[in-house]
Amino acid sequence: MREVVALRMGHRLPRDERISTHVALVARAFGAKSMIYSGQQDEGLERSVRRVVEEWGGDFEISYHPDPLKVIREYKRKGYFVLHLTMYGLPLKEHLKEVGEKVLVAVGSEKVPGAVYEEADLNASIGTQPHSEVAALAIALELLCPSVFTREFKGKKRVIPQRKGKKMEGKNG
Amino acid sequence: MREVVALRMGHRLPRDERISTHVALVARAFGAKSMIYSGQQDEGLERSVRRVVEEWGGDFEISYHPDPLKVIREYKRKGYFVLHLTMYGLPLKEHLKEVGEKVLVAVGSEKVPGAVYEEADLNASIGTQPHSEVAALAIALELLCPSVFTREFKGKKRVIPQRKGKKMEGKNG
Repeated sequence: MREVVALRMGHRLPRDERISTHVALVARAFGAKSMIYSGQQDEGLERSVRRVVEEWGGDFEISYHPDPLKVIREYKRKGYFVLHLTMYGLPLKEHLKEVGEKVLVAVGSEKVPGAVYEEADLNASIGTQPHSEVAALAIALELLCPSVFTREFKGKKRVIPQRKGKKMEGKNG
Repeated sequence: MREVVALRMGHRLPRDERISTHVALVARAFGAKSMIYSGQQDEGLERSVRRVVEEWGGDFEISYHPDPLKVIREYKRKGYFVLHLTMYGLPLKEHLKEVGEKVLVAVGSEKVPGAVYEEADLNASIGTQPHSEVAALAIALELLCPSVFTREFKGKKRVIPQRKGKKMEGKNG
């Protein structure tokens, strides 16, 4: 199973508050071990994500670094393959075999520095239509480290899947 | 290939502006033919989505209806299978064969009325961890009507996939 770290670039307040939270929760639920974000530091984002980890389990971590290029270069030095998800890149599904066992998956907001395209080991697309970095990350992680349908977390809260309605263990835990 | 309509329930302004835009763009890029949204009407959301369709092609439509239950009942009468995506539901991947050829895929924001769980033909989860309706919709559509990697749109703008950098046709079209 691949080891994946997510990099969320260019977080802006208040514009990206909820999108970046979704990016982080997708990173966690779809198997990344941590997320680093750049742009503006956001204690609310960090708190939301840590609360989910506290309640729902696992050891997913979120941290801030002001410079995404430094993060990319540091992870390359540590032997990570840098996968930049962009609608301008090559189809990920066709290039999956290039991707290493340790992966930094980078997703942007609206403006991604040109240097990110240069530094990435692979610029890859999840379709070439405008859609969402949240969706792109989910599809990419489901290709890189399946599967969201079988991954288990040991948390205080746990859903008992139902045909109708909601059932949970540890709702007040 | 299944015919899919997306239903985005409970849109709130300004909180959901960007999330609902991502939901709509994912619906389009991942093969739904249209999206209906409920909650608060939002001309900005409708305008953003229509601009993407105008520039990038296809005939995806967005429309507003104040009452999601009326939409669900109307689509059931028209022979659609109502699939409600919720982290409390049964794993979609294991229950895919239940889903009909015409599908209304409903995704909520934070509060979904209990009646939606009752009216749905299937309440299904994309994993049972908290993450994102944007990701859930993308994964569901990729199971229902693949694939985002091969779907083509005839638009004024078109990406020419590149290993590095950005290349487009019709950038100023």
